[in-house]
Amino acid sequence: MAISKDSTQIGFIGTGIMGGHMARHLQAAGFKLHVYNRTKAKTDALVAGGATWHDSPGAVAAESDIVITMVGFPKDVEETYLGAGGIVERARKGAILIDMTTSSPALAKRIAEAAAKKGVDSLDAPVSGGDVGARDAKLSIMVGGDKAAFDAALPVFQLMGANIMLLGAAGAGQHTKMCNQIIIASTLTGVAEGISYAKRTGLDPVEVLKCIGGGAAASFQLNVLGNRMLEGNFEPGFFMEHFIKDLTIATEEAASFDTKLDSLQLAKSKLEALAKKGYGRKGTQALYKHYNPD
Amino acid sequence: MAISKDSTQIGFIGTGIMGGHMARHLQAAGFKLHVYNRTKAKTDALVAGGATWHDSPGAVAAESDIVITMVGFPKDVEETYLGAGGIVERARKGAILIDMTTSSPALAKRIAEAAAKKGVDSLDAPVSGGDVGARDAKLSIMVGGDKAAFDAALPVFQLMGANIMLLGAAGAGQHTKMCNQIIIASTLTGVAEGISYAKRTGLDPVEVLKCIGGGAAASFQLNVLGNRMLEGNFEPGFFMEHFIKDLTIATEEAASFDTKLDSLQLAKSKLEALAKKGYGRKGTQALYKHYNPD
Repeated sequence: MAISKDSTQIGFIGTGIMGGHMARHLQAAGFKLHVYNRTKAKTDALVAGGATWHDSPGAVAAESDIVITMVGFPKDVEETYLGAGGIVERARKGAILIDMTTSSPALAKRIAEAAAKKGVDSLDAPVSGGDVGARDAKLSIMVGGDKAAFDAALPVFQLMGANIMLLGAAGAGQHTKMCNQIIIASTLTGVAEGISYAKRTGLDPVEVLKCIGGGAAASFQLNVLGNRMLEGNFEPGFFMEHFIKDLTIATEEAASFDTKLDSLQLAKSKLEALAKKGYGRKGTQALYKHYNPD
Repeated sequence: MAISKDSTQIGFIGTGIMGGHMARHLQAAGFKLHVYNRTKAKTDALVAGGATWHDSPGAVAAESDIVITMVGFPKDVEETYLGAGGIVERARKGAILIDMTTSSPALAKRIAEAAAKKGVDSLDAPVSGGDVGARDAKLSIMVGGDKAAFDAALPVFQLMGANIMLLGAAGAGQHTKMCNQIIIASTLTGVAEGISYAKRTGLDPVEVLKCIGGGAAASFQLNVLGNRMLEGNFEPGFFMEHFIKDLTIATEEAASFDTKLDSLQLAKSKLEALAKKGYGRKGTQALYKHYNPD
């Protein structure tokens, strides 16, 4: 399939903070959009810009050459794609289905198999870069699936991201995102522990951060989230409950290995305990509260 | 004390890889050096450049207005400063003693107290930036002690480092370095887990690193040490046994808190097990071997 803004119909399902920005870039480039979102109001701006509202993901798929999803949890992905009247059932022949939700690699494989039976391509293409990356079309996009489908979809990815890579067959995009999240989980924990240590020893943690933030300990977690911890700013850049979702997927996948990822498990257990205390809709930097409860 | 290369005598004790580079910068700036090192041959280049060899740390101190130490473990620091005939006993009145070893904050306070009784200033001033930072005079230097002594010593620090900060009273430099190491310990563990996950899932870990190394997971540990893990290059940039020393100090200090730094403890226990297997003189990136044994 050759993509053209004059003829290619793009479906976009899930137009929240991330998906809303991403869909807007496609619309701005001149593509005709078909949209669905659980909360309909979140499609208003896109519809005002010319998008067509449909009342189910399947109805979007029936009108689209490319279907992009950016929904919440793996169960949402599963229902949206594999449910009765869902995307796979109603997809057009020759369509490309692209799930950009961070979701389960195993589910991505199941969707790819179901799609293939219908003569439809699918890609798993989770992103990193957060709301700012989505807004500025600077997302990293990690893709799994067939190279031909990747090549065909590339012009669409390029409207949303800056660093776009095909990492392997179906599921490889999700696995790559899991690597990213596994690394971030322990880095964030180390930052929370280091800053907590600084506070306990009577140092001025703001000065400490200024000092070590330019050296070998530097990271987004230290330099951005560490500062938010110290400011007492726990507003979400990335929801803790979504991070827990990601780490749960990673843990489930890792359960089949001979090797225990126990630093990941430790980070996850702390986050889960915090979510139980009501921090699930706070940002991931609220991990600091494990070490510094109110 | 006003520092001048024409009159200020600088003692430098511990001229290994790090100390050797640092002393060379002082010599190149025109300072007269007095040197001691356990392995005498490691002072040869400095002596050829005009430094005077002495056969003990105390003998160096007796001739020096500023005494800098860069030795191994806290027990070496303790003996060098507080032992019979050591630096504090033989220091000149009005001298400034500067320990740049990563060592115990509690010991730094004891040295400062002993020095003060002799009318001598002392600073704890551990560094980060490794051998490359030392070679290029780009070290971060984290200082604890009196402001007057810090201000006096600053021109000397500036010959060795780029980011030089006074963080508080005696021990504050060491505490800041501990924060740095605590953060790095978990970050490194996360990187080893993420890369191990990538390998287990059949991804090409080199491609994964290329993909996620430009995003929110980026760090020195991922982008530099992660690549060394994948190349099977475990040669030391920073010795694992020295990192274990640092984390042991951090753990001992943290033992007085109400808060358990368990991600730190987990990283430390893995490194200790690897050191027992013979990886102590390898680089810290050999933590990868915990997850991928031979």
